Amino acid sequence: MSNANENLNGVNLGAVGALVDHIRGNPGAARTEWKSHVRWAGAFRSESRSRNQRAVPSDEPPALGGDDTAPNPVEQLLGALGNCLAVGYAANASVAGIRIDSLEIDLQGDIDLRTFLGLGDGNAGFESIAVNVRLVADAPPEVLRRLHARVVSTSPVGHTLGRAVPLRIELSS
Amino acid sequence: MSNANENLNGVNLGAVGALVDHIRGNPGAARTEWKSHVRWAGAFRSESRSRNQRAVPSDEPPALGGDDTAPNPVEQLLGALGNCLAVGYAANASVAGIRIDSLEIDLQGDIDLRTFLGLGDGNAGFESIAVNVRLVADAPPEVLRRLHARVVSTSPVGHTLGRAVPLRIELSS
Repeated sequence: MSNANENLNGVNLGAVGALVDHIRGNPGAARTEWKSHVRWAGAFRSESRSRNQRAVPSDEPPALGGDDTAPNPVEQLLGALGNCLAVGYAANASVAGIRIDSLEIDLQGDIDLRTFLGLGDGNAGFESIAVNVRLVADAPPEVLRRLHARVVSTSPVGHTLGRAVPLRIELSS
Repeated sequence: MSNANENLNGVNLGAVGALVDHIRGNPGAARTEWKSHVRWAGAFRSESRSRNQRAVPSDEPPALGGDDTAPNPVEQLLGALGNCLAVGYAANASVAGIRIDSLEIDLQGDIDLRTFLGLGDGNAGFESIAVNVRLVADAPPEVLRRLHARVVSTSPVGHTLGRAVPLRIELSS
């Protein structure tokens, strides 16, 4: 793939195009497996590691008994959603020839701590998540609204959160 | 709260107990709000930030057109689940008087990239997620199995993934 947008927004459209072509010719290649390894580090501290990347620390704020050294897991989940949307904007805007000047995303969600703390049997997770996207780009509002709709409808983390995912969590003996 | 387990596993049980007592007397205090702010940094790079914590970088691997500088968003999501389970183990083991010697958690999940890449209309997210927990602790297997069941049934990130969460994702004009 080679066109005038090749490096628009810094995105390597050649690599994305090559992946798309490869999957068109070999649909099984679309099935990808992703991993993370988490190691407990004492108290409420732990760290996650994927592939050859640096470990990412996790902790809890003092009000929850933590040492406040890193974002906590539910904040990490919100960050993962925002980062996923950012990739979607960068990819789809670049393919469409739209230059992004700035992109900031605010995410927030509510949790009732009673279930986690053993004071209730309800939903321990986010009741809902609200996301506000601030995008400055060189395209008319209607074009940006279509871009937004496309990003939201194809986000891997967005789909994961919007559906009930089968989880199998097993303790090795 | 003061007992022999006060600092078992390094956990500040006093802080957790104070929070539980506070919520018992004031149920509204259980309703907490969590936030993350994400800023796009060019190409497929971005970073998330919560409270006063350091920014956490995000990128994609080269096969997906990224610069490979950080875990990608779906790996971050798996890490968030593992880190959440680690907090649950540390908290519940400490309350139960169980000393944890080591805790490692492997997470993996499958994604079909066709929807993200615009080659299909299916699920862009994880089809399923499998988690393997390796816990070494000073308690009989039956006690550890009950601990495991409790952690899984009260995990905020686990509940978030296991249910369809209402998402509202809006583009500011």
